[in-house]
Amino acid sequence: MSAARTDAIARISTDDVTEWWSTAISDIEPGIIRLRGYPIEQLIAKASFAETIWLMVRGEFPRPEHAELLERALVAAVDHGPQAPSIAAARMAATCGVGLHGAISTGVGLLGDVHGGAGQQCMRVLEQIHTDALTEDLTVVIARLLSRYRDQGRYVPGFGHRFHPRDPRRDPLLDAAHDHITRGTIAGQYVTIAEELERQLAAGRSKPVPMNIDGVTAVIYSELGFDPELGRGLFILSRSVGILAHSWEESRSGRRIKGPIPPPLLPAYGGAEPRKVPSPRVVHK
Amino acid sequence: MSAARTDAIARISTDDVTEWWSTAISDIEPGIIRLRGYPIEQLIAKASFAETIWLMVRGEFPRPEHAELLERALVAAVDHGPQAPSIAAARMAATCGVGLHGAISTGVGLLGDVHGGAGQQCMRVLEQIHTDALTEDLTVVIARLLSRYRDQGRYVPGFGHRFHPRDPRRDPLLDAAHDHITRGTIAGQYVTIAEELERQLAAGRSKPVPMNIDGVTAVIYSELGFDPELGRGLFILSRSVGILAHSWEESRSGRRIKGPIPPPLLPAYGGAEPRKVPSPRVVHK
Amino acid sequence: MSAARTDAIARISTDDVTEWWSTAISDIEPGIIRLRGYPIEQLIAKASFAETIWLMVRGEFPRPEHAELLERALVAAVDHGPQAPSIAAARMAATCGVGLHGAISTGVGLLGDVHGGAGQQCMRVLEQIHTDALTEDLTVVIARLLSRYRDQGRYVPGFGHRFHPRDPRRDPLLDAAHDHITRGTIAGQYVTIAEELERQLAAGRSKPVPMNIDGVTAVIYSELGFDPELGRGLFILSRSVGILAHSWEESRSGRRIKGPIPPPLLPAYGGAEPRKVPSPRVVHK
Amino acid sequence: MSAARTDAIARISTDDVTEWWSTAISDIEPGIIRLRGYPIEQLIAKASFAETIWLMVRGEFPRPEHAELLERALVAAVDHGPQAPSIAAARMAATCGVGLHGAISTGVGLLGDVHGGAGQQCMRVLEQIHTDALTEDLTVVIARLLSRYRDQGRYVPGFGHRFHPRDPRRDPLLDAAHDHITRGTIAGQYVTIAEELERQLAAGRSKPVPMNIDGVTAVIYSELGFDPELGRGLFILSRSVGILAHSWEESRSGRRIKGPIPPPLLPAYGGAEPRKVPSPRVVHK
Repeated sequence: MSAARTDAIARISTDDVTEWWSTAISDIEPGIIRLRGYPIEQLIAKASFAETIWLMVRGEFPRPEHAELLERALVAAVDHGPQAPSIAAARMAATCGVGLHGAISTGVGLLGDVHGGAGQQCMRVLEQIHTDALTEDLTVVIARLLSRYRDQGRYVPGFGHRFHPRDPRRDPLLDAAHDHITRGTIAGQYVTIAEELERQLAAGRSKPVPMNIDGVTAVIYSELGFDPELGRGLFILSRSVGILAHSWEESRSGRRIKGPIPPPLLPAYGGAEPRKVPSPRVVHK
Repeated sequence: MSAARTDAIARISTDDVTEWWSTAISDIEPGIIRLRGYPIEQLIAKASFAETIWLMVRGEFPRPEHAELLERALVAAVDHGPQAPSIAAARMAATCGVGLHGAISTGVGLLGDVHGGAGQQCMRVLEQIHTDALTEDLTVVIARLLSRYRDQGRYVPGFGHRFHPRDPRRDPLLDAAHDHITRGTIAGQYVTIAEELERQLAAGRSKPVPMNIDGVTAVIYSELGFDPELGRGLFILSRSVGILAHSWEESRSGRRIKGPIPPPLLPAYGGAEPRKVPSPRVVHK
Repeated sequence: MSAARTDAIARISTDDVTEWWSTAISDIEPGIIRLRGYPIEQLIAKASFAETIWLMVRGEFPRPEHAELLERALVAAVDHGPQAPSIAAARMAATCGVGLHGAISTGVGLLGDVHGGAGQQCMRVLEQIHTDALTEDLTVVIARLLSRYRDQGRYVPGFGHRFHPRDPRRDPLLDAAHDHITRGTIAGQYVTIAEELERQLAAGRSKPVPMNIDGVTAVIYSELGFDPELGRGLFILSRSVGILAHSWEESRSGRRIKGPIPPPLLPAYGGAEPRKVPSPRVVHK
Repeated sequence: MSAARTDAIARISTDDVTEWWSTAISDIEPGIIRLRGYPIEQLIAKASFAETIWLMVRGEFPRPEHAELLERALVAAVDHGPQAPSIAAARMAATCGVGLHGAISTGVGLLGDVHGGAGQQCMRVLEQIHTDALTEDLTVVIARLLSRYRDQGRYVPGFGHRFHPRDPRRDPLLDAAHDHITRGTIAGQYVTIAEELERQLAAGRSKPVPMNIDGVTAVIYSELGFDPELGRGLFILSRSVGILAHSWEESRSGRRIKGPIPPPLLPAYGGAEPRKVPSPRVVHK
């Protein structure tokens, strides 16, 4: 081995080597699996799937009331039909013989900032408003924010829906949140912020711009203390159910290498006119 | 448009165009979302996440007892530590700045036949044994199958574990299954088959070869009537929780472009000796 | 640390730890990068991209004539339009803000056995025929194989095209192969096999079933000595160019969360009638 | 169909339906494939793979000299060894039985902003400097930029390497660029900028901070007129070759479900102490 290599390697400490493997999540020994300190056999016996999700990402068990709210939010976002690109692409993958893992991986991979990120972005907006409203009047904070969004021609993430005049997932989730405020199990500050956002967004318009699924789950995840990025993580877990169901339905149809077919007589090509490769191009003689 | 193109397009019927979009899962109209016929607001109010998973892939609600078994199986498989390739690759992805969707997509994409398929394969084995045992003695059917596996040098999928002498997830799940047999909520034929497999696998060995997580969840999913391929789908949903938790933990560490680092002084390269590109290679002059 | 853990760890030898990192491809030292033994600076100066692809997967440089054939085959398969699921899904991904890496990863992920595997499967068929024809007459071997395919209602991979009566990529690639047979740079046995397959497939039909892109590249890759699985690998590299071009075109359109839109008035839903969640479902009280 | 649904659908115009399918890249008719207007048979006969890549993403053929520079840059970035996460994750995928498409998809999916984006970011920096230097002295523009980077504790993308004191890919690519400046085939403004960046970065340090592979390919792609985002696209095509070669090497090793193994005696777990699930948790009774 060259001296240069030896030197380079010497810069790698044992700490670097071992550090990679450290985790606070799972402790595995022969015959033993503990997740966040809890033996797996007790989790199997006593914990719901939703509680286990919370435990795994947060490190502690939720209160039962918080687990209930999480469960409702997870149920709410499982599917919105085959036209969402994440579902459509997963269905296409299913026709390509890549297995359910390939189809789900395909669908989940599309849930980036644009298709899967509105909830996370809404959580950041709620957080910012909450911080600003510690020292200023809430209505003023929101009025200023909306004015800035309008000036920039931007939508407020989590509000309005291009298909639903009123997203049918808004009311049941918001009602559940109010119920928990009454019971004292959540504080309600993000509910207040989101409702004031709705109120000001509606002012002076013929139609309201109510919270959509991203907005109302953002409110709940914020009330429950999740980091905004985890808001997206939870959405992914939820929507994975729809991706699985659609991939499975498609895989049973027996179609091969299929996707949406364009309507007949479609003038799909709009590029350069037919032409000849200029000669001589001399890569191959 | 050329005549040839017109002809080709004429072969695409309207049925082909519309057929792609058909689904029995989600019915979406403005202001309305129904999944498997149920309004989303009722699902949010009344269904658990595990029940919703069942409903989405099966089309009908489970009995509460069946939902309970599904929930236990989903909890059992959420994680087995950072060394599984699916988790390790997802953690690497997290250091590459590709977002939680990218990390989860990466991890899920590795759950193919080898890493994620043992449960599905075990379900097929159980199914085959069950079919054969309709007309023949169960112990004979299993003895013949094991003899064939031994001759081919193959492992029976779902039995034995390279790390755990006895997988700690076996007993609580199998106990739950027995409890449900007693209560009459599952028939128990796959439990019987798997236990006979265990008994015969142990015969004449110093150490038993007990069911592992793949085997015991295969038993439960078979009792619950899931298709083997859905067995893998459910495993993917479950393990996605661990993938999310590990990706999130890693993404908070702030490491960039990192993976496991090889131990110092590692002679990693074992290929051709240093040599010169033969001359003249005349692609570029 | 428990004794059980210590024992389990003791079973991991240093060989296991180091073995993972061994490779015959790349030798990296500070200031030095050698690929297959060749210094990167010489490769940059002298090798074409196609030659480098060959070197990387095969370990040795191709003869210039072989590099030329590889290059033609790589060019031939770059794209077949936006309706292939791999391209369509990548374009959808591009509308979801997941970056070119996300879009290409999505498209490549769909090139499994069904959508990307016909060339690999054709290479296996050619290989099998070649082996059988060592001891038997070629026409007999092929007649028997086609008879078996007909009995099983299967297509021969690599022959026929659902859109092109004659795939326009067949002739130029096959002509190039014949030219190289004449020049003595390939042996031609797989060309002979594929042409006899074509001849027998056409017999008694009104229309021929000529080689398609998968078949004709399979012939060339077989003549060049590639393993069938690498045939798929090369197809993936080639089609990645089309996936990149389409993803890039789509990403510049500015569309967000878009995919093909179903034709108006589409009766997409065909599942259960609207119904109520049975009560009581007692997960949440 | 409900009136609401009819209304919603009526808002979808035929333009929306057909617009999705429009492309300026590929024109496919029965028996005809034209890419950017050129018949595929002429491309197969006359174009190199690198030229075809250019044509597909840019719409026009490169000059032969530009194709040569592109080819060198594509060759330069094919691989940097098995420790890069993109390669390591692809090798893991290969042990999981997900096929070469799954392995390549996994590796490519990691080439996001952090692992695959330095070249693209460097191109943006070069572009910004170029714009600013139209009205101001270049050395002043760069001095100000470096001062800002130092204040923010940021690295300049494309300069310096944590392993190579001098990246061996810098000189041959930069020499080629200078050769083309002399021949008048590129203008050289980005070469000048990058060299001035190098000069100022080195000032007052004991060791220089030379361009790395990302920096020097950024210079070449900028000289050739590629959009920064396409710089990443080209890097992905190039690195896909290394990902394929490593995935293929790994898949032939026969290892199953493997990844790097942590060194023995590794205290990997660092989370909560063993504890009991609090009782009663009342999801299952």
